[in-house]
Amino acid sequence: MGKFKIANMNQNFNFTGRRSHRTYTDKEVSIAQIEQLLEAAAHAPTTGNMQLYSVVISTDKDVREALAPLHFNQPATKAPVFLTFCADHNRFEKWCRQRDAVPGFENLQSLMSAVFDATVFAQQFCTLAELHGLGTCYLGTTTYNADKIARALDLPDRVIPLLTVTVGWPADQGEDVGRLPLQAVVHHQKYHDYSAQDIDRLYAEKEAREDSHRFVSENGKATLAQVFTDVRYPKCNNEPFSEVFAQFLRDNRYL
Amino acid sequence: MGKFKIANMNQNFNFTGRRSHRTYTDKEVSIAQIEQLLEAAAHAPTTGNMQLYSVVISTDKDVREALAPLHFNQPATKAPVFLTFCADHNRFEKWCRQRDAVPGFENLQSLMSAVFDATVFAQQFCTLAELHGLGTCYLGTTTYNADKIARALDLPDRVIPLLTVTVGWPADQGEDVGRLPLQAVVHHQKYHDYSAQDIDRLYAEKEAREDSHRFVSENGKATLAQVFTDVRYPKCNNEPFSEVFAQFLRDNRYL
Repeated sequence: MGKFKIANMNQNFNFTGRRSHRTYTDKEVSIAQIEQLLEAAAHAPTTGNMQLYSVVISTDKDVREALAPLHFNQPATKAPVFLTFCADHNRFEKWCRQRDAVPGFENLQSLMSAVFDATVFAQQFCTLAELHGLGTCYLGTTTYNADKIARALDLPDRVIPLLTVTVGWPADQGEDVGRLPLQAVVHHQKYHDYSAQDIDRLYAEKEAREDSHRFVSENGKATLAQVFTDVRYPKCNNEPFSEVFAQFLRDNRYL
Repeated sequence: MGKFKIANMNQNFNFTGRRSHRTYTDKEVSIAQIEQLLEAAAHAPTTGNMQLYSVVISTDKDVREALAPLHFNQPATKAPVFLTFCADHNRFEKWCRQRDAVPGFENLQSLMSAVFDATVFAQQFCTLAELHGLGTCYLGTTTYNADKIARALDLPDRVIPLLTVTVGWPADQGEDVGRLPLQAVVHHQKYHDYSAQDIDRLYAEKEAREDSHRFVSENGKATLAQVFTDVRYPKCNNEPFSEVFAQFLRDNRYL
């Protein structure tokens, strides 16, 4: 044991300097190591110790090739390992029914518990993977095609794919994308809403970045915010994908 | 800098042995330290680098006393510090509108992005706090009274409280509550559904624990599963609290 003492991990790892990695070398990823990291990550907090999640580890070429277009073939889908983290009441409810207990989890609060459990588990895995030198990248596209990903991975009723993490040995250093200053996200005692001047001040550094200027000009937009609203996350995509996901949640009796 | 290199943290910290802490000593918690930890945690992954979250740090006695009953006065609510992690489109949409960009985030997919961002941020904070010797405990009750917590913390429109983390210097070692064996939560290539025998095998160790036997007898139940379905997370609680939360999400134009 003692394998997951930080004394045994990369002593130069810096939480402030961490980056996502979207490109990977050919070096083989040990599935035994992935499992050890997941086992340690499962000690992260979980609602009432119910562990309302599952993770599907996909390495076979045909499974990865089925998943990639469902994630819009974004660069990280060339990764050697896909981990699909799911909200899972299937296992817990099967256990309840085998033990003369009547589950009452077909509702939104139960979904939220499973979403928190699965996300906390995924993030603890990412941290542990990074501490061991692996590169990871979240694919935020999982809920966009949750119904199709569920079919591709044989997910049964009451299992909702939420987040996909690609894993491999990093081929580059990753990009330093920066963050808002801390005052942008922290409030003391209660929430203090932002004045127009606050917004200008808090976003100034982000807007001044060289990559921000490039995004604006490459997309032919007037402001960085328009890149988000018109190109990356436009209403005309968000709304139909929301309807598909809501229907999938209704089909699984969460909504 | 280099403050958040793991070389500077508790070298005996063991991810597999981590525990939640619900009781705290009188030793003062430095808010400057909490802010440093949050600043490092903000480098965790976030959807499109939008940071769709806020956190409210509450230490004033009157604010904590207003929050405690909204978390059903559970033991951890005696903590000196409450962190309420929120999904936040308020800040991002204010920025968009000030930059001639029309936000299209009043939908379920945008909510999910903010839920993932806030949860990943919260978990990265918890890991960093634990690595520095602090005790943390999630209050999973935040979504149950989200509307009332929003009023207590002056949260504006489009800010949804999701998870509360209590923080303090731990007064005890915390409880070792155990986890299911890894095979319970991991699937290879695709999902392989559980047979009745699988369920018996995967839950055997949990059911055999001394504390599980105590929960069953203390609650006058026949099985451990009934403690979850009849006492801890009964349908008659889950359903009305789900309706209140759904209405709050509709009021904020996420559903």
